[in-house]
Amino acid sequence: MIKKGFASDNNAGAHPQVLAAMIDANQGHVTGYGDDVYTNEAEQLFKQIFGDDISVNFVFNGTAANVLSIMAAGRSYNSVICTDTAHINEDECGAPEKITGSKIIAVPNDEGKLRPDRVKPHLKGFGFEHHSQPGIISISQVTEMGTVYTPEEIKELADLAHEHGMYLHIDGARIANAAASLDMSFRAFTRDCGVDLLSFGGTKNGLIMGEAVIFFNQELTKGFQYMRKQHMQLFSKMRFVSAQFKAYFKDDLWLKSARHANYMAQLLKEKLTPIEQVKITRKVEANGVFAIIPKAWTEILQEKYFFYIWDEQTNEVRWMTSFDTTREDIENFTAEVAKLASNG
Amino acid sequence: MIKKGFASDNNAGAHPQVLAAMIDANQGHVTGYGDDVYTNEAEQLFKQIFGDDISVNFVFNGTAANVLSIMAAGRSYNSVICTDTAHINEDECGAPEKITGSKIIAVPNDEGKLRPDRVKPHLKGFGFEHHSQPGIISISQVTEMGTVYTPEEIKELADLAHEHGMYLHIDGARIANAAASLDMSFRAFTRDCGVDLLSFGGTKNGLIMGEAVIFFNQELTKGFQYMRKQHMQLFSKMRFVSAQFKAYFKDDLWLKSARHANYMAQLLKEKLTPIEQVKITRKVEANGVFAIIPKAWTEILQEKYFFYIWDEQTNEVRWMTSFDTTREDIENFTAEVAKLASNG
Amino acid sequence: MIKKGFASDNNAGAHPQVLAAMIDANQGHVTGYGDDVYTNEAEQLFKQIFGDDISVNFVFNGTAANVLSIMAAGRSYNSVICTDTAHINEDECGAPEKITGSKIIAVPNDEGKLRPDRVKPHLKGFGFEHHSQPGIISISQVTEMGTVYTPEEIKELADLAHEHGMYLHIDGARIANAAASLDMSFRAFTRDCGVDLLSFGGTKNGLIMGEAVIFFNQELTKGFQYMRKQHMQLFSKMRFVSAQFKAYFKDDLWLKSARHANYMAQLLKEKLTPIEQVKITRKVEANGVFAIIPKAWTEILQEKYFFYIWDEQTNEVRWMTSFDTTREDIENFTAEVAKLASNG
Amino acid sequence: MIKKGFASDNNAGAHPQVLAAMIDANQGHVTGYGDDVYTNEAEQLFKQIFGDDISVNFVFNGTAANVLSIMAAGRSYNSVICTDTAHINEDECGAPEKITGSKIIAVPNDEGKLRPDRVKPHLKGFGFEHHSQPGIISISQVTEMGTVYTPEEIKELADLAHEHGMYLHIDGARIANAAASLDMSFRAFTRDCGVDLLSFGGTKNGLIMGEAVIFFNQELTKGFQYMRKQHMQLFSKMRFVSAQFKAYFKDDLWLKSARHANYMAQLLKEKLTPIEQVKITRKVEANGVFAIIPKAWTEILQEKYFFYIWDEQTNEVRWMTSFDTTREDIENFTAEVAKLASNG
Repeated sequence: MIKKGFASDNNAGAHPQVLAAMIDANQGHVTGYGDDVYTNEAEQLFKQIFGDDISVNFVFNGTAANVLSIMAAGRSYNSVICTDTAHINEDECGAPEKITGSKIIAVPNDEGKLRPDRVKPHLKGFGFEHHSQPGIISISQVTEMGTVYTPEEIKELADLAHEHGMYLHIDGARIANAAASLDMSFRAFTRDCGVDLLSFGGTKNGLIMGEAVIFFNQELTKGFQYMRKQHMQLFSKMRFVSAQFKAYFKDDLWLKSARHANYMAQLLKEKLTPIEQVKITRKVEANGVFAIIPKAWTEILQEKYFFYIWDEQTNEVRWMTSFDTTREDIENFTAEVAKLASNG
Repeated sequence: MIKKGFASDNNAGAHPQVLAAMIDANQGHVTGYGDDVYTNEAEQLFKQIFGDDISVNFVFNGTAANVLSIMAAGRSYNSVICTDTAHINEDECGAPEKITGSKIIAVPNDEGKLRPDRVKPHLKGFGFEHHSQPGIISISQVTEMGTVYTPEEIKELADLAHEHGMYLHIDGARIANAAASLDMSFRAFTRDCGVDLLSFGGTKNGLIMGEAVIFFNQELTKGFQYMRKQHMQLFSKMRFVSAQFKAYFKDDLWLKSARHANYMAQLLKEKLTPIEQVKITRKVEANGVFAIIPKAWTEILQEKYFFYIWDEQTNEVRWMTSFDTTREDIENFTAEVAKLASNG
Repeated sequence: MIKKGFASDNNAGAHPQVLAAMIDANQGHVTGYGDDVYTNEAEQLFKQIFGDDISVNFVFNGTAANVLSIMAAGRSYNSVICTDTAHINEDECGAPEKITGSKIIAVPNDEGKLRPDRVKPHLKGFGFEHHSQPGIISISQVTEMGTVYTPEEIKELADLAHEHGMYLHIDGARIANAAASLDMSFRAFTRDCGVDLLSFGGTKNGLIMGEAVIFFNQELTKGFQYMRKQHMQLFSKMRFVSAQFKAYFKDDLWLKSARHANYMAQLLKEKLTPIEQVKITRKVEANGVFAIIPKAWTEILQEKYFFYIWDEQTNEVRWMTSFDTTREDIENFTAEVAKLASNG
Repeated sequence: MIKKGFASDNNAGAHPQVLAAMIDANQGHVTGYGDDVYTNEAEQLFKQIFGDDISVNFVFNGTAANVLSIMAAGRSYNSVICTDTAHINEDECGAPEKITGSKIIAVPNDEGKLRPDRVKPHLKGFGFEHHSQPGIISISQVTEMGTVYTPEEIKELADLAHEHGMYLHIDGARIANAAASLDMSFRAFTRDCGVDLLSFGGTKNGLIMGEAVIFFNQELTKGFQYMRKQHMQLFSKMRFVSAQFKAYFKDDLWLKSARHANYMAQLLKEKLTPIEQVKITRKVEANGVFAIIPKAWTEILQEKYFFYIWDEQTNEVRWMTSFDTTREDIENFTAEVAKLASNG
């Protein structure tokens, strides 16, 4: 039997329609490296969403999308301001620093979010050659703590960035979950708020792999094709990423998947809330639920379900739902928790 | 109608059995990043081929396999000696230099091969701090010119490297075609000849994507897991690469595919040899055919078939065959050429 | 008239004995790049101080000494933990990140010092490939806030580092002032406390330029000669740095200079303490005095004296003394302040 | 007794007037990092030479000047074309690759010079993302083989570069010797020929240390101040480099020194030419003499004089003269050679 779990939305497989699209694309020869009909179509789909005057660039994974965004938007003497919990700060083994040379300035998060008041103390040293020049503000939408920025919050950060000649980047590894949560178009809370670059993720919402670096600010694209290749992110059989995105956008598969995952997280939260020993610690706005549970429970639950301990000190754990989480999965899992609660 | 061609073995799609294996692997949740049953099995398959005491590390593409091999085998002050035609020198947009910091020393090739006599003049400056320290010899098997090193040739280079405290790396983007051409096991012309690291390619022989960095010299693996992640090459849904390799090795699919591609190249050569205006310029030992054709023909042929001009000066062109090239493809194409010849 | 000031100890010139030594060294030809009698002698002087089994490597400036120390002690996937005020974090324009690729983790300082309790939360993720591997703890002695670590404090950090397989590095740009303040040998609070690498500074205490990377842990020196050259820090006419260090150590010039500078800071503090509107904000343990003064005074004082505003918000300013600060300088300056106070 | 020699012009010390200028500059406090009267004056002197609309940036050494020039003129995906003997290719331990990420393309030299016909085959792949984009042509004036480009030769290379959207950089480590040899102003064979950036060297002609990156193309200066700092090349006590350059330009000290060195090389050549066993191998156009001598002589001569073997195979040696080489040095040395010749 295949064990399911709540470890990460990337422990799920691919949506069957995504795989089907790859099979459809597996016909004959096409030019490699993106000059093919599938990639052209996929780019068109992005343009329908975000507007024609954008640049769409596929890469292999989210780390690469983030790192290449930072590279495109700055030079090595620029710094990037983000939260301490940001993927670029915590979970990329220092890729941004190694690849771009830029300093990452991590500031405390508030419910996973980057607040202007945390950013401002670091908006200093402009023109002072001893100091890394603040160049980019980077946020994650959905945040790593499962919360979702409002368009107003994003706009405020974009304005702050632009007032200082900086750029706003979004790490959108879970951007579909954000769109579903906000019930808005992708564009409404990115480009329309002044975002300059976006790492548009698909892997965590049912693709096999594939992310896109989207430039709303096309001035930043100069030389990007060479950067992508030089940084080992140019896929020879590009059609197999493009085809996935085609399936992803078709009939709003992305939205159905993301809504479902979000809903499963709400369900999980609801079913756990009555259990006294479980303390939900964060707002549940997308597909992640954070909770403090009795230490003894963790190991027992992990025998049957994958999930991560978020904070060893407090025994806060993280449960992620995904497009393929079922109501039954939630019910079985929460039943296990309830059993532990009643035994305790 | 889908146009076929001879541009590159990566213009082909994936072998249907490879896609089928991905679908099989698309069940339930597994831990991300390689700690899963598919990846364990794929690693075992590599160990059956090369021996148990190796390290197998999947990455997204061949450029990454090469670059990370160089990084693992040296420090930034080491240099890498290769042919002028080497992929790491010509076709990776400077990725090795940017990512590893190492100097690439390109020397003239002889039939695509790196000869010890070309290497030796660069084996100098050891211990002299002003000079990049020769650290790695890197060869491509199959070479970029379609030729195949004999085991003796490889051993000679490995010995030369080791005598100088250096390592031998193979860029094996087309290693299956080499094995088929030599009619030898992979091991016989790599590890058994003293090779230290191998970029084991699959994409050019029917995978969607996926290459492996294989360490025969396990001393070099220290920290490699972090290097892979930091350099944006850790695949979250790793099972989808591993599953491809499982299919690749099953019932020698790799060998059938490579043999077929090689055979198609031979057929192409045979059918073109009688045509006076076509001059085959290189030995055809694997799946590439190089030829000089009348300049006027190129454009006409390229209307129906993808292929690259290798040398603008001489109008030397390159035709690559692949696992899905059919006898009919060859016959149709050579008929076109013959027609041009008789019209000329 | 030449304006003096309290901006930085590097606004001072060179000690006349240092320049005299350079003139003495300016005779005939010697081999370049360090293989000369002056450099050999200078290295011997360091060995007399720290023990024979060390490695001494001159570089041009303090930033280079710090960056190359970090490079020698880790790989790009290692992180460096330091205070938020550390020179490597604030004042090197991101050099450590760009040159070494390592992540800098800046934690809040306590009186300028790095406390183990601030370090410990970041000693995590060992063996987890997504996380930069904690590799180095780096402290500044004297700290950027003018305080001086006790040997016990240093030992505690060294032990903490070593318990986790990490190294302790000291940025000793003002190490002479620390030795003078502690009234101890250099060795007593570095090597004898378990420090692994030391940036030994001279520029801020009367040299023209010249710093040394000192390895107490000689395992880390492998390849360092190449790293220094590759990172543009190998001085061709090395004798002109070495000669300065010879003068520096002769008859304890370094100690006299540092003691004097420290004493001048004490004098400055003493003379300012009675002035009500001046609030000394930090312990004065070496050659820096921090104080909050009325905002209106800053500009007036800066007309005659160089010094920096440390914190724009609070109008905290920093006054640094140096080997050439005179009692008269202090008296004149404090008289100016007193005048402002009485006018205010 | 101090041994003199012909190893390198950086084995010489400093010109006494240069040291005297440093002593003059050693008065009182000045702002660090270049915002001082000495540096302003030095910059003015450069502007008198090259025109007002240039940018002058001091760095510590020639390697840094070259590397930072390359960085300023390109991105990591650009390549740099130079001769195989270029300092950036042979003698900087891979600094350009490590620091800038750019590929160095080394082509065969003709009498030490880079010829357009050698460059042209590498002016390819523009716009092709797999290929490092040719960005910079870099030449050394004087060349590493002691020859001097004519203005016409430089202009031809500048034109070639500009036709392809590239830049021309000169490594001017021995630019004074070139000016003396050509009997021209610095400007006549650099800026006036279309050169974009210049590493202006002083160390090899009597400075202690100090080079300048000169931008004739000021578009390239964007962000350079941060690059210099981030790459560890910002000198805190900048006045001590600037003062040297002031002395260097005063009363044409640079020209007297360079003329003298060149003349000594001519003298050396003249005196050796009659000796049958000594074969002068290169044109002597500046301050270097290359010759093949009997193998047995090398060791004997090296006991008394420093010099390098240039080519172990042929026993070609290199003798460099410098500002402080005396007629007596030449006579003594050539007498030794003559003695060997008559004994042989």
